[in-house]
Amino acid sequence: MSRRVCVVVTSRPSYSRIRSALQSIQAHGDLDLYLVVAASALLDRFGSVVRYVEEDGFEIASQVYSVLEGGNPLTMTKTAGIGLVEMATVLDQLRPDVTVVIADRFEIISTAVASSYMNIPLAHVQGGEVTGSIDEKVRHSVTKLANLHLVSTQKAAERVVRMGEDAATVHVTGCPSIDIAREMLESPELDVGLFEEYGGVGPRFDLSDGYLVVLQHPVTTEFDQSRVHVLETLEAVHKVGLPTLWFWPNVDAGTDATSDGIRSFRELRQPDNLHFFKNLRPDDFLRVALGSRAIVGNSSVAIRECSYLGVPAVNIGSRQDGRERGANVVDVGYDRDEIVEATLRQMARGRYPRDELYGDGRAGARIADVLASAHLTVEKKLAY
Amino acid sequence: MSRRVCVVVTSRPSYSRIRSALQSIQAHGDLDLYLVVAASALLDRFGSVVRYVEEDGFEIASQVYSVLEGGNPLTMTKTAGIGLVEMATVLDQLRPDVTVVIADRFEIISTAVASSYMNIPLAHVQGGEVTGSIDEKVRHSVTKLANLHLVSTQKAAERVVRMGEDAATVHVTGCPSIDIAREMLESPELDVGLFEEYGGVGPRFDLSDGYLVVLQHPVTTEFDQSRVHVLETLEAVHKVGLPTLWFWPNVDAGTDATSDGIRSFRELRQPDNLHFFKNLRPDDFLRVALGSRAIVGNSSVAIRECSYLGVPAVNIGSRQDGRERGANVVDVGYDRDEIVEATLRQMARGRYPRDELYGDGRAGARIADVLASAHLTVEKKLAY
Amino acid sequence: MSRRVCVVVTSRPSYSRIRSALQSIQAHGDLDLYLVVAASALLDRFGSVVRYVEEDGFEIASQVYSVLEGGNPLTMTKTAGIGLVEMATVLDQLRPDVTVVIADRFEIISTAVASSYMNIPLAHVQGGEVTGSIDEKVRHSVTKLANLHLVSTQKAAERVVRMGEDAATVHVTGCPSIDIAREMLESPELDVGLFEEYGGVGPRFDLSDGYLVVLQHPVTTEFDQSRVHVLETLEAVHKVGLPTLWFWPNVDAGTDATSDGIRSFRELRQPDNLHFFKNLRPDDFLRVALGSRAIVGNSSVAIRECSYLGVPAVNIGSRQDGRERGANVVDVGYDRDEIVEATLRQMARGRYPRDELYGDGRAGARIADVLASAHLTVEKKLAY
Amino acid sequence: MSRRVCVVVTSRPSYSRIRSALQSIQAHGDLDLYLVVAASALLDRFGSVVRYVEEDGFEIASQVYSVLEGGNPLTMTKTAGIGLVEMATVLDQLRPDVTVVIADRFEIISTAVASSYMNIPLAHVQGGEVTGSIDEKVRHSVTKLANLHLVSTQKAAERVVRMGEDAATVHVTGCPSIDIAREMLESPELDVGLFEEYGGVGPRFDLSDGYLVVLQHPVTTEFDQSRVHVLETLEAVHKVGLPTLWFWPNVDAGTDATSDGIRSFRELRQPDNLHFFKNLRPDDFLRVALGSRAIVGNSSVAIRECSYLGVPAVNIGSRQDGRERGANVVDVGYDRDEIVEATLRQMARGRYPRDELYGDGRAGARIADVLASAHLTVEKKLAY
Repeated sequence: MSRRVCVVVTSRPSYSRIRSALQSIQAHGDLDLYLVVAASALLDRFGSVVRYVEEDGFEIASQVYSVLEGGNPLTMTKTAGIGLVEMATVLDQLRPDVTVVIADRFEIISTAVASSYMNIPLAHVQGGEVTGSIDEKVRHSVTKLANLHLVSTQKAAERVVRMGEDAATVHVTGCPSIDIAREMLESPELDVGLFEEYGGVGPRFDLSDGYLVVLQHPVTTEFDQSRVHVLETLEAVHKVGLPTLWFWPNVDAGTDATSDGIRSFRELRQPDNLHFFKNLRPDDFLRVALGSRAIVGNSSVAIRECSYLGVPAVNIGSRQDGRERGANVVDVGYDRDEIVEATLRQMARGRYPRDELYGDGRAGARIADVLASAHLTVEKKLAY
Repeated sequence: MSRRVCVVVTSRPSYSRIRSALQSIQAHGDLDLYLVVAASALLDRFGSVVRYVEEDGFEIASQVYSVLEGGNPLTMTKTAGIGLVEMATVLDQLRPDVTVVIADRFEIISTAVASSYMNIPLAHVQGGEVTGSIDEKVRHSVTKLANLHLVSTQKAAERVVRMGEDAATVHVTGCPSIDIAREMLESPELDVGLFEEYGGVGPRFDLSDGYLVVLQHPVTTEFDQSRVHVLETLEAVHKVGLPTLWFWPNVDAGTDATSDGIRSFRELRQPDNLHFFKNLRPDDFLRVALGSRAIVGNSSVAIRECSYLGVPAVNIGSRQDGRERGANVVDVGYDRDEIVEATLRQMARGRYPRDELYGDGRAGARIADVLASAHLTVEKKLAY
Repeated sequence: MSRRVCVVVTSRPSYSRIRSALQSIQAHGDLDLYLVVAASALLDRFGSVVRYVEEDGFEIASQVYSVLEGGNPLTMTKTAGIGLVEMATVLDQLRPDVTVVIADRFEIISTAVASSYMNIPLAHVQGGEVTGSIDEKVRHSVTKLANLHLVSTQKAAERVVRMGEDAATVHVTGCPSIDIAREMLESPELDVGLFEEYGGVGPRFDLSDGYLVVLQHPVTTEFDQSRVHVLETLEAVHKVGLPTLWFWPNVDAGTDATSDGIRSFRELRQPDNLHFFKNLRPDDFLRVALGSRAIVGNSSVAIRECSYLGVPAVNIGSRQDGRERGANVVDVGYDRDEIVEATLRQMARGRYPRDELYGDGRAGARIADVLASAHLTVEKKLAY
Repeated sequence: MSRRVCVVVTSRPSYSRIRSALQSIQAHGDLDLYLVVAASALLDRFGSVVRYVEEDGFEIASQVYSVLEGGNPLTMTKTAGIGLVEMATVLDQLRPDVTVVIADRFEIISTAVASSYMNIPLAHVQGGEVTGSIDEKVRHSVTKLANLHLVSTQKAAERVVRMGEDAATVHVTGCPSIDIAREMLESPELDVGLFEEYGGVGPRFDLSDGYLVVLQHPVTTEFDQSRVHVLETLEAVHKVGLPTLWFWPNVDAGTDATSDGIRSFRELRQPDNLHFFKNLRPDDFLRVALGSRAIVGNSSVAIRECSYLGVPAVNIGSRQDGRERGANVVDVGYDRDEIVEATLRQMARGRYPRDELYGDGRAGARIADVLASAHLTVEKKLAY
């Protein structure tokens, strides 16, 4: 009998990251896929994935609305609580053989706790990494709830084992986000007009002479400063002057501060080199990144996918602290001058060689194989 | 300015355990205590602690009802979610400098996640231990959310550090439950009539010729078997025939199975040597345990406090697997014959010498001192 | 295409009352039944209906746990809120053509609001009656949310219309609880041993020389007095001395006060003429009532079914104030002497003639017919 | 001792409407005001009232986040459920002598049910009116929960009594929204630059040659059509060509459809006569309305305040069906041609004479007086 695999996607980037694994699970003869779309992944404001899921040919087993609006730590916490109440219902109805959660966003704790408390084995993709902020707590906390660990790098695997997990439950699959990068390279040109297809807000400019990509998330433990931080980046890319494609951040405490910063900057400075997008198809986003002179901000994409693609990256602030990185990344503080200087230097440097630190682009298939063959149990005990 | 310390108690045994620390926090010149009573700690059915809290002279800062009735994994999970939503409100109102959670019951994840997501430093008492069942996941998961670790034993401290916590944040205080045992020994006789004071259900017998104490919790990952397990213990103590004081278990998935088991046994066998209690004051419970010929079941009291007190213990099943134990404990399976045999052997053996494995009885004061002096931060990162 | 009818049952008495309508809906060629069991109807403590539902051959479309434990107005209110959140999910999944709620217990507001807000036509059974306590507010409030009114009496129909409802949406079906009474009369003898089948707590006595039936609910707007009230009744039936079958009340604020009152009375007085039951099959309960010398308490059964059956009833306190009643009912206050006196008088009076005030026993079929044929819409507007 | 009055505001328009009553309550010697700001009234996206509350000199007793993001009937329903759970906590903490809810938005059911179930007398402002859509159900349903009715018109009072409420509990105070209109007329000129003060999106034009005001809410029982409806209005005011100030709608199922309609119209047509605002201070909004050639849309402001102010109004669609109206209102369907024609006609007609149908502008003081002097009870019973 096929194993029932419930994969819970809570945000646009998570969907992007796990898509190749979803395809492999769906195609696997011994697995039945139950895809749950939850939290900000359902909301237009943060880039609903529903359309992409359908285009990609997946069926949605359940939609879970859990985002309590407010954009502050109180509502973020209650969102996790509502998500926990709701995921209990979903898991009770789907009764999967294993639940899969991805990475480290705050909403995944809801699924991880629900699966654990309902005695359903939990698989965690992308554990064992080290970063800054609340993500760090969430990620390792989920590791201690998980029964199966599908990690991106050898070093991540070592950390998970050192945390006391049974080595037999830890599998280095590579990061599935690299899979999309690998596939994308087979047709690296956008086959649609970027502005025509994706709209967005701001001037539409000629991208043929080079452009920047920016993706900056609020950092939740520095809630009050999100507005200040984003303004430094806005000033910096304004000063660099190159056409810039700015991608809207996800839901998080601080989102509203970030959004407000962006809005007030637009009002005040009326920048003519910034265009804002809410959401792109994952492969198109990578095409855009690949074509850019540099990617700026604090997204993990700049470190993971862009190391494989060789795109120069300027990583700002503490959000990615501790994450393993390749040669393509330059780190700077929340300082407009530092950002300008690093961006110009990276633009001058040009493309880097491919780095397979985060995988060879075949993680999805490996994840499916492990889910199909691993011993599944809810029992675990500290290894020491 | 005094530090605001929010201690969240979610069950009768947790209150019992933390009481000496509450006293030390309340008495400490640099600390203000905010005691939150939540979940089953508010419910008569599981032994409300409200009366004891008042008798002990603590003020309750907030009462949090979170138990969704049903006694199964689904409602247990939703209880955790409701608790998370509610604790967000409480922490938003109290705005403590540090939140304290105790041990490893499933409800504590609500407070641990709420405190983490609201950027309030989290202190965890009794981390680093190893047991069976869902408690194991909860305990270590909370360790990964916590910023301060107040552990019972040297070995627990080592485990917490091995899991990647900064050694500077780990403090061996001993277990505060031992504090009550130490204090109790100053007046080890009950100064009330047990039956007169605590009522309960069943015959009232003369305890002067020896009696047993039983405390058996359902084991949540073995949900369906709770009823079977408790029946084995019931049959065993019925067969031993000694007057037996049986203490009602806590809320948990499986509670109703346990309760039903007990009820149907009473109907069927009409045992004349069993008396059932819902709740005793913590010190009185230890007096009763101290006076017993043996303590039977799967409670941690048998392992912690009773090692200090030297009470012979028969530990049944997997619930305490992995917990460090002294010489006073004999382990058996869920088997009436094994239980009978071990109980008779322990009764014959008599009192054991004091073992300070779980502390010297001064943990409360140490916990207060650490809370007053430790560097408090929400930032943390895996140590490797 | 058949209409999808979602009937939500939130308590044992509601199930009992609606059973004949469920049978008629299930048997109706143009209707598909979706039965949702929610709130206290799922809980053993208040008499789970799950077993009876299965025995009666209905499938449960969804189980909704919503009771937040605590037994006070705060948890009662939160229970309604949790129920609303959960019923939204259920109705979103079932997408019925019409939702049916029964009577006036506080939990039904959850379903009524959910159905209204999700644009699903709402049918209300047993609106338009007048009683005391919070039920009064709930009942009429639900009337103002409902699109279809299936009432028990002509007078109830008149009241619903006077409240501004379109007369075309109001149907006098009779009360479906009378249907069970009518059916029961075809075989009015218990075909099981009462004590053997239903257990319960207390002495088992010979019922052939006459007995009383007691069913007393807490009255929520008189929360603090529930304990006092139940003690008056306990003292009264103790004094009357006849064997008495006491049926446990439903969940409600005050339940625990009622339960505690009962428990302490048992401890203190050790009554030898009281036997306590949690739940009987509806028809068996009516058989027991039919065989009794009188029914005592504040249940609507004493007024509805017992008027049809002619069982003498002693109605205590304010809970049934304003409800239409037949000759079989004597009203008394919360006073042991009054209760004793009225009970003795009713016992002496003996059986009353049948009264069809609440219907002729064919309400279920009429309800099903209306659900199948009525114009269903969510639109409504005050008629004046 | 002063009565504790808890007023719950759940939206920008509600705040605007109740402000004069808040002032009178705060100034009243026998009343203590506890202002709760909840639901969309806290959210920037729908016009947070927090800043205005502070500017007006009120203290916020509690902030209640309850909006589950999603903009559809499912999330709207869950929002009501979350609000109910949260309001229970708030009322338990504030323990007011009376709770006040305003009008008929879907979120007020949460407060109305919470207050009823917690045995706190409920006062309802603006009951007894008749409109279209879900508001109709909410309003009358709240009437049946309320103990005190503070209505706007004589006709509303009659309706409340006909619905079965005790006439002694019904008070015609006039609508407090008229109070702001009356006060505003003392200084009817904006003393700030509209665009400078309130920003907004779109061209800034000279208003001295006349302009339109538009305020159009989604109609929840016509969820799917919200986008179509708003497009008709957009086309119409585009065609009229006069500078138009468009005010963003409130949170509701359909909001996102409305917002999307607006956004896509702006992208496609790039209208040069539309400026969009999120929120104005209530008095400034009325100044803007007063200065307009006509107010267009489906807001109750066009019917209430504008009848007093004599501003010509074009009321679109079913949302205000049944609401009493003065001579200033012309009703049209969701049809661009009808809207254009009616708007031009109203522009040509010019200002109407004052109509005191909705009050004389002294409702706030009357409301405070009734709250201070009325007999407060939770008991009620249908009057017939």
